[in-house]
Amino acid sequence: MGQSEPIDGRRKRGERTRRSVADKAAELASVEGLDGLTLGQLADALQLSKSSIQAAYTSKEDLQLATVAAATQIFMQNVIAPSLDQPEGLPRLHALIENWISYISQRVLPGGCFMGATLAEFDSKPGLVRDQLALARRQWLTLLERQMAKAQKTGQLPTAPSAPALAFEIDALLAAANVARNLHDDESALTMAKSLIEFRLGVQTKP
Amino acid sequence: MGQSEPIDGRRKRGERTRRSVADKAAELASVEGLDGLTLGQLADALQLSKSSIQAAYTSKEDLQLATVAAATQIFMQNVIAPSLDQPEGLPRLHALIENWISYISQRVLPGGCFMGATLAEFDSKPGLVRDQLALARRQWLTLLERQMAKAQKTGQLPTAPSAPALAFEIDALLAAANVARNLHDDESALTMAKSLIEFRLGVQTKP
Repeated sequence: MGQSEPIDGRRKRGERTRRSVADKAAELASVEGLDGLTLGQLADALQLSKSSIQAAYTSKEDLQLATVAAATQIFMQNVIAPSLDQPEGLPRLHALIENWISYISQRVLPGGCFMGATLAEFDSKPGLVRDQLALARRQWLTLLERQMAKAQKTGQLPTAPSAPALAFEIDALLAAANVARNLHDDESALTMAKSLIEFRLGVQTKP
Repeated sequence: MGQSEPIDGRRKRGERTRRSVADKAAELASVEGLDGLTLGQLADALQLSKSSIQAAYTSKEDLQLATVAAATQIFMQNVIAPSLDQPEGLPRLHALIENWISYISQRVLPGGCFMGATLAEFDSKPGLVRDQLALARRQWLTLLERQMAKAQKTGQLPTAPSAPALAFEIDALLAAANVARNLHDDESALTMAKSLIEFRLGVQTKP
């Protein structure tokens, strides 16, 4: 027991370093992509030595997987968690979409959507990183589908397109809005996507 | 005049090399992205020396710009040109969408959509490459908008959403279908996107 505290202390410091590296990597990867991440950039941004980063993550893939996990957690905190006080169905769906747009607009991550920056990079590269990105995307689509199915069941939404098709469409509009906003440094793409989504969900605006 | 033929010959060979490098770079970048392109990969794929590639393109940006131009030309040949025998309005719009989906499905470029692979990579990186990608995207959206506006004017399409909003939506669905197909090596995302687009264009299927 006499030795366990210093070991625990080292473990905690190690965990804190791993976590802060992964969070910073999520920020950088939202702009540079996951393959564009360099040890040098991370070390500069965190004011750490390259060797402490290499000690925290012993392989590039290990760091990339931790970065996807950190980005997923940031997304859950900013987009999903604040929707949970809304009733399921159309109200929660609207909350998810509003939270997503405000998350991108505020550049919580500087490149906007982490998935947008990294899915296109990894979609043709089979491996653990692609699998983890695909899983995170599937969980997001399932969440949207569930709210749409509830809304359809209670007559808040028409039954065509089906919930999976509509979830695919809403996600596609959000992803395209992120690219268009970044490309022109112009928020109007976010506004336009929001009106279009509301129109497709039956809110009577005319995009 | 006695010396002009050998010089012309060298120029033509130089042009052929530049062109074949840019075409191969478009193929590789559809998978790896433009920043992922290396001289070594290009040299291997073309069985050329690294120095001949460096002689053809003296800077990385020069090569990237030529790659975007080559990819744009491949897209025009495969998607746009074969739509031009259809009447403007809904028939040409359908032809553009069918050609796009078949172009991605056939993997004319191995990673599918060049713009999908590179827009997400460059959307947060101001510079000439981003400008050229943004221009190519704008031309494609303008082409869709023009056919939609014609279709709306002749009563082939409802007037809401507006032509620009609908063009944004169709392009978003195509881009998302490309990512989903690549991610799961599964063509069903292309089929689903096609049904959804036909539904949004008023063709009576139920996705």
